[in-house]
Amino acid sequence: MVEYDGTCFSGWQRQDGGIPSVQEDIESAITAFCQLDIRIHAAGRTDAGVHAQGQVAHFDLDYGDRKLEGWQLVNALNAHLRNKAVVVLKAEIADPAFHARFSAKNKLYRYRILSRVAVPVLDAKRVWHTRHELNVDAMNRCAKVLLGTHDFTSFRAAECQSKSPVKTLDRLDVFARNYEGGGIEIIIETEGRSFLHHQVRNMAGALMEVGTGEWNEADLQRVLEARDRKENAVTAPPDGLYLVRVDY
Amino acid sequence: MVEYDGTCFSGWQRQDGGIPSVQEDIESAITAFCQLDIRIHAAGRTDAGVHAQGQVAHFDLDYGDRKLEGWQLVNALNAHLRNKAVVVLKAEIADPAFHARFSAKNKLYRYRILSRVAVPVLDAKRVWHTRHELNVDAMNRCAKVLLGTHDFTSFRAAECQSKSPVKTLDRLDVFARNYEGGGIEIIIETEGRSFLHHQVRNMAGALMEVGTGEWNEADLQRVLEARDRKENAVTAPPDGLYLVRVDY
Repeated sequence: MVEYDGTCFSGWQRQDGGIPSVQEDIESAITAFCQLDIRIHAAGRTDAGVHAQGQVAHFDLDYGDRKLEGWQLVNALNAHLRNKAVVVLKAEIADPAFHARFSAKNKLYRYRILSRVAVPVLDAKRVWHTRHELNVDAMNRCAKVLLGTHDFTSFRAAECQSKSPVKTLDRLDVFARNYEGGGIEIIIETEGRSFLHHQVRNMAGALMEVGTGEWNEADLQRVLEARDRKENAVTAPPDGLYLVRVDY
Repeated sequence: MVEYDGTCFSGWQRQDGGIPSVQEDIESAITAFCQLDIRIHAAGRTDAGVHAQGQVAHFDLDYGDRKLEGWQLVNALNAHLRNKAVVVLKAEIADPAFHARFSAKNKLYRYRILSRVAVPVLDAKRVWHTRHELNVDAMNRCAKVLLGTHDFTSFRAAECQSKSPVKTLDRLDVFARNYEGGGIEIIIETEGRSFLHHQVRNMAGALMEVGTGEWNEADLQRVLEARDRKENAVTAPPDGLYLVRVDY
């Protein structure tokens, strides 16, 4: 399980040309540790700027007769990740059949919005800042339109590689808390087995329209049923998005 | 009222030689706004690396016949603070007798400790990281030894300019919450009218000794009564300290 500051990466996925990725940093640490060229696989390949508090990844390593424990791997990898924006929180030896992505039963994503006049400095690149006052009750109520199994084409990025746009959303809650120094922090939490590319950020963008009063429940229903990305709102920025937890 | 990321500054106080300070950034913004050379005064002059979510500062401005409202000042100053690590949250026209420091009746400081194996990356420079498991109940119980009016010489920096080492501590609470991704966040909250230089960080350092089991209530009592900085623990790093609120 790893934590990373998405601001420092072009995303999870390794890319050519020296573009910084979480995958490359971790793979380099593994290579430094065991002198083998290893590929790792993540539960969800997050985009540039998206943070993780509990991303999960696996890799196959033949460590022969050596006894390797999870905490040893944590310490060894973190020693090679010093001063990087990614850190290993936990590691364990998994069943050979385990796959970080395909074995995942549930993922929790959190999206943070900060509503106040002043731009954030302590939470710069950690929240989506808006000067609008948002109707959080309406956001939470309308969010329920998206629960269940739907064709989420309207919430899907053009680059999405998923075979089917049909996904099952198990949870989509919106709530608020006071933000220190004034202002309101609006938190969107969503859970499901898997998500389309940009799905959470497109849901956050749509819920922003609800929060400002531009859209109501019927609008959200219409957008969902349109199965057309162009009917939907703007994609929320990556700054506020966190992959919080993956359940197996 | 201002928020700032202490990481980016050598502290509140203006210094010579191009050293970045919160005071200088705000004063420069005021000058850019009204073409006058103005000095501002803060409720508490925070050290290098210390954050603020609700620092308060005042300045005297003769704006003649112009009608100036708080929100206009907020917008004008923030326009000149763009891309700086400080932002104005709120402003109001105060009584001429008001002084940000001398009129303050109460200040709330928060100190955040993160207890887990892995170093923080999302909260890098936002918490004091420790690998120790801390006894939070003991920390909260022993903290009460410091409540009330005492000679806090053992908790005072050598550079402290306060006339008297006697201060009244109205609140010192320690509590814990789960940290996303595993680990425990320990939060120290303290309130009082005024604090000595490094007092909160020295209290946090002493409470860390209690949390690890090195010290008990009697040790803390002994340190307090010694009135000798050398009897106390290390000064906690600035990373975890926040000036949260000033009450008038």
